[in-house]
Amino acid sequence: VIAGDGGWGTAMAILLSQVGRDVGLWCHDPEYAEFLQRTRLNPRFLPGFEITPAVRISHRFEDLVDGCDVLVSAVPTEHLRSTWTALAPHLPPRVPLLSLSKGMEETTDLRPTQVLAQVVGERPIGVLSGPNIAREIARGLPAATVVACEDAALARAVQSSFSTETFRVYRNADVVGVELGGALKNVIAIAAGMCDGLELGTNAKAALIDRGVIEIARLGERLGGQRKTFFGLAGLGDLLTTCTSPVSRNRTFGERIGRGERPEDILASLSQVVEGAKTAGPVHDHMQRLGISLPISEQVYQVVHRGKPPRETVRALMLRGPKDEAEDLV
Amino acid sequence: VIAGDGGWGTAMAILLSQVGRDVGLWCHDPEYAEFLQRTRLNPRFLPGFEITPAVRISHRFEDLVDGCDVLVSAVPTEHLRSTWTALAPHLPPRVPLLSLSKGMEETTDLRPTQVLAQVVGERPIGVLSGPNIAREIARGLPAATVVACEDAALARAVQSSFSTETFRVYRNADVVGVELGGALKNVIAIAAGMCDGLELGTNAKAALIDRGVIEIARLGERLGGQRKTFFGLAGLGDLLTTCTSPVSRNRTFGERIGRGERPEDILASLSQVVEGAKTAGPVHDHMQRLGISLPISEQVYQVVHRGKPPRETVRALMLRGPKDEAEDLV
Repeated sequence: VIAGDGGWGTAMAILLSQVGRDVGLWCHDPEYAEFLQRTRLNPRFLPGFEITPAVRISHRFEDLVDGCDVLVSAVPTEHLRSTWTALAPHLPPRVPLLSLSKGMEETTDLRPTQVLAQVVGERPIGVLSGPNIAREIARGLPAATVVACEDAALARAVQSSFSTETFRVYRNADVVGVELGGALKNVIAIAAGMCDGLELGTNAKAALIDRGVIEIARLGERLGGQRKTFFGLAGLGDLLTTCTSPVSRNRTFGERIGRGERPEDILASLSQVVEGAKTAGPVHDHMQRLGISLPISEQVYQVVHRGKPPRETVRALMLRGPKDEAEDLV
Repeated sequence: VIAGDGGWGTAMAILLSQVGRDVGLWCHDPEYAEFLQRTRLNPRFLPGFEITPAVRISHRFEDLVDGCDVLVSAVPTEHLRSTWTALAPHLPPRVPLLSLSKGMEETTDLRPTQVLAQVVGERPIGVLSGPNIAREIARGLPAATVVACEDAALARAVQSSFSTETFRVYRNADVVGVELGGALKNVIAIAAGMCDGLELGTNAKAALIDRGVIEIARLGERLGGQRKTFFGLAGLGDLLTTCTSPVSRNRTFGERIGRGERPEDILASLSQVVEGAKTAGPVHDHMQRLGISLPISEQVYQVVHRGKPPRETVRALMLRGPKDEAEDLV
């Protein structure tokens, strides 16, 4: 049972039902649930794809969970706590829960699985994350992802249930690293977008993404993740998708800044959240608290939250003192 | 003194002379040297850029080297041995030599600095490598690179001499890793191009590049490089440029294969070398000799040298057994 009818929840429902899994899709809004059920289309979040007839759709969670063996949370991070607090009374006991959310809870800095652990009762909780643009997966294009949970048997079971001929699932025991990879990449993606908007070229963008993943690993390791996870699919892999996709919200936000729009004006014009703009604040705080160097993330913070002109960030990054790369690599 | 009037040698001459260095540019062909000198243009290898008037140009190496404090080799790998064997009698003693070549000598599998060490006499030899598309650097767009040599004092001197406001130079003592990064990335770039040609999407390409750099690090470490170098600018950074640039020869070769052309027909139609097609052979040999897993490079080998249809490689990569990512990361 997948909770959440956004792009990724819907694509996951289509993917799994196409290989014969019995899938329930929970939709918060009763009217939209009825619309989804009737039309088998989700124009709001995944336009252009038919929801396989076998997918059971309802706004009543309790109608979907009979015999359920995996719960999937496809809920935006900002609605995670409220949604699962409301669903908690209807959850079958001990059934594992897999989170698809990327981000950090703004008020607490908690990772999605930490939030879930506080509200869904005693059960195994894992995360599935990677370079997974929903509409490509709905189209059946090949993709790979990572499932992380502490329980190795559950990881194997999820790997086996979610793998298809086009969706390759890797296991990784590092829940913290996999979850942080999905959150921290959005800050670097804003910088990559600024690079596009300023038309700095392929060399500059490649260097920025490379130095960016090194920053992610440096901070992520200090926050409890394993260094190598950040160079895997849920770290570097996801970063690459976000920095190169024309449809990435975070990259596009950065591109508009690079072309001269003011960050606050862009944010006011958007209906959806730009996660990286939010995450830049906690990253700046962590940097100061830990006394580590995160030059790219810091420039994003300065531009988005302190009004620094984007072109000045290029000078700031290029004119730092000479470095030994080896000391700097992680 | 820069030996070689190709795109990168010429761009390097422009870059350095613009910040006031006294630069000599050696051109093998007497007629073309005269043309370069007269027109200050290099339409054959770097069309559209003026060679700064201060750059001294000659086909007579001995006329350029008076007072020279760094020699730069900007010669294609396949001409490296013959070129420097011919230049050897004219080289000022003990002056350090910096190699810009990316590749491996086909008959010996030697790295460029190993070839140079055999022919240029007793002198410090280093390498400069990174995400450095020549025409972007000639335009003055920002870029970063890595200089590697065993002599730390020389590394600092080169770092200081070659750094400009738009060209950021990192030091790294790992000569082997920096050089292998520049050679091995071309095989993965062919796979990335096939991904483009087959229109497999952003998710697949991101996963491929991520798993690709992990392969590069796995093989590169076995060949004597340091693991972390392969995730730095001369490894991952250069890989990213090559996999995303529309003008990369290796990526374009892969893209044409993905669109259905036969590799041998494409190679026959090109005047320039596709380094990755050559490097795929030695990589396949190393894989078998070392008994390691290099699934992406192996599929490139199968397509380029064994006539395997590119679409079958996707199935081969997606349908391997289930993996623990952590065991597989380096």
